[in-house]
Amino acid sequence: MALIVQKYGGTSVGTTDRIKNVAVRVARWRAQGHQVVVVVSAMSGETNRLIGLAKEIQPNPDPRELDVVASTGEQVTIGLLAMALKAIGVDAVSYTGGQVTVLTDSAFTKARIESIDDKNIRRDLTNGKVVVVAGFQGIDAEGSITTLGRGGSDTSAVAIAAALKADECQIYTDVDGVYTTDPRIVPEARRLRTITFEEMLEMASLGSKVLQIRSVEFAGKYKVKLRVLSSFQDEGEGTLITFEDDKNMEKPIISGIAFNRDEAKFTVTGVPDRPGIAYQILGPVAAANIDVDMIIQNVGHDGMTDFSFTVGRGDFDRAKAILDQVKAQVGAKEISGDKSIAKVSVVGVGMRSHVGIASNMFRTLAEEGINIQMISTSEIKISVVIDEKYLELAVRVLHRAFELDQVEA
Amino acid sequence: MALIVQKYGGTSVGTTDRIKNVAVRVARWRAQGHQVVVVVSAMSGETNRLIGLAKEIQPNPDPRELDVVASTGEQVTIGLLAMALKAIGVDAVSYTGGQVTVLTDSAFTKARIESIDDKNIRRDLTNGKVVVVAGFQGIDAEGSITTLGRGGSDTSAVAIAAALKADECQIYTDVDGVYTTDPRIVPEARRLRTITFEEMLEMASLGSKVLQIRSVEFAGKYKVKLRVLSSFQDEGEGTLITFEDDKNMEKPIISGIAFNRDEAKFTVTGVPDRPGIAYQILGPVAAANIDVDMIIQNVGHDGMTDFSFTVGRGDFDRAKAILDQVKAQVGAKEISGDKSIAKVSVVGVGMRSHVGIASNMFRTLAEEGINIQMISTSEIKISVVIDEKYLELAVRVLHRAFELDQVEA
Repeated sequence: MALIVQKYGGTSVGTTDRIKNVAVRVARWRAQGHQVVVVVSAMSGETNRLIGLAKEIQPNPDPRELDVVASTGEQVTIGLLAMALKAIGVDAVSYTGGQVTVLTDSAFTKARIESIDDKNIRRDLTNGKVVVVAGFQGIDAEGSITTLGRGGSDTSAVAIAAALKADECQIYTDVDGVYTTDPRIVPEARRLRTITFEEMLEMASLGSKVLQIRSVEFAGKYKVKLRVLSSFQDEGEGTLITFEDDKNMEKPIISGIAFNRDEAKFTVTGVPDRPGIAYQILGPVAAANIDVDMIIQNVGHDGMTDFSFTVGRGDFDRAKAILDQVKAQVGAKEISGDKSIAKVSVVGVGMRSHVGIASNMFRTLAEEGINIQMISTSEIKISVVIDEKYLELAVRVLHRAFELDQVEA
Repeated sequence: MALIVQKYGGTSVGTTDRIKNVAVRVARWRAQGHQVVVVVSAMSGETNRLIGLAKEIQPNPDPRELDVVASTGEQVTIGLLAMALKAIGVDAVSYTGGQVTVLTDSAFTKARIESIDDKNIRRDLTNGKVVVVAGFQGIDAEGSITTLGRGGSDTSAVAIAAALKADECQIYTDVDGVYTTDPRIVPEARRLRTITFEEMLEMASLGSKVLQIRSVEFAGKYKVKLRVLSSFQDEGEGTLITFEDDKNMEKPIISGIAFNRDEAKFTVTGVPDRPGIAYQILGPVAAANIDVDMIIQNVGHDGMTDFSFTVGRGDFDRAKAILDQVKAQVGAKEISGDKSIAKVSVVGVGMRSHVGIASNMFRTLAEEGINIQMISTSEIKISVVIDEKYLELAVRVLHRAFELDQVEA
């Protein structure tokens, strides 16, 4: 008998029929003797509907009140799922974040969990109940309702699993695990049986949006055993996210090829190579709440340097307008922007101890005539920016070059 | 400067534009220096949508979980209204029933308020804020969310007004007050400047559904000054609901003509006139959760008596089936039912001290050839059951007979 925390996202609870299906799945785990806590999101579309109402009232809704409104989405789901469980004879009880209590800071719309009181949940589990908890939400020390921001239900599930010292935290989603790359681009892409937390962080931030990044960080910090599974398939063990310590030494060097086509690139050429220049260029961009991803500044010469960075493609026009103003202030020669780019990354903890990954990657791309525009590296990934039109080709050839289509040892 | 509690129903907050209008109205009261607490219902249609979802899951939804789901409707409105107030520069804060705290018993879907903690509200009012509270809901001693049942937002408003010792509780609705009768039937119907609590109770239970009965009882118990106003008109003082003690001695004898066409009548003829017979007939009906309104049993003769009562028209078929079973058990001769009836009542505290109201009523109906099928009286009302087809005629002639079209003194 194990204590399992399961999380079902918006698509998995998108209709009342799907909620009934989730109840059947939960009942099966209960029938095997496990204690089950279920964390749920709002029914798909509901959070957008609620935020839409708020924006009709106030284009930039007051954050405290927005959380009051947005948190109702999950509250509806917990009630419906608890009913669905009772309807098939499984005793169940629902809790909002505030009722658990999930205590957060007061950063409305992007609050962070500070502590979880597991008293109610433990009592109910002991009494044989399935406990259904609203994801995405908590309350602050004042008793105000808070939300954790988009995707926060994953974080709720992991935090509750950590508080309960659960045996496993299962994230049910519309994919059946984490793949070596997107199977729509590379049909030979394989589901990974395991992936390390660090790799998962890189894969998630690079566009393999299976899990919310913060939940993975949280799981790493509290050593929660995290598994990604499909809520639409009955078979399969999904992908287990492991700590590096646990890793099989036979594990392949590279775990997967991630990519992101939702970026745009700016290059500021001919800027004076002096201290503070990066801040002068990026400060106004950040102040406009535009996230910057890759930042490249090469060694300057003749007192001048070039400066490149990428932003989300949706922010291209706003960033361009800001840079046009910044240009004169920093005395730059030219600003160029390019929306037709894509980022491709090879990810794997194994590359730390293996030389030659970078050269293999660059050679593979060169053999296909794909020009590399920017390069950025971390301990466990190498990312390159290329022309968007070569994206699928790059992913396919890299997948093959690193033998990701081979069955795991 | 006064402390005002205002309540806006579902129609008044039915769209985001209407919520903005409510904010403007509240701002006007604030600008006059008043402290304002606003109690709101769910946007119109929302509670039905939520209950509909629940019924898709479970035809008879678990009451605790139904309240978790249904209470989200008001929670959305409080957030939106607080935003709308802030958007026009009025500082505001929202509270769910649980956040106030509105403590209730644990009778889910029809909970009763036990106490209200006014600490948070008082602090915010002192700090110049408008406090927006979700009607219809509270929490029980366990911390579970409860709802007060349909129309419960009125009760929430009155209870909060009582706890705060507010100067006035204003119920904004889609009518601009309480009328002598339905203006759609009698164009000369007048808005009453005042009506007593007891009259209001009779008017409400008789189908003039302006206020929820329980809220009126509550206001009477705690001596809350209650006023019904239109949320769609800027002019008008509405109708003030007074205690009888305050009543103007010049007040007319009769305040209004109420009616209800949503009833059906049963007559059980030839039942043995023995103790317990009423219970034997009505017990099974009540056990099936069918509300019985008028009950008439006349003096028997020859050891036999007749027994009549009315139920909601929607319960006719279920009640009929029960009575067909009961018939043999009590040895009744015949059961007859009639769905084409209507109830008409004259209501007024003045009739206590004035004879002749009943005879005036009966004569007026007789002059129009309207046969009276059942009569029931209380201290402040006389109700008759007549053929439904005469309803409008009866209301019109009674309105004129009691001079309700004359302007108040």
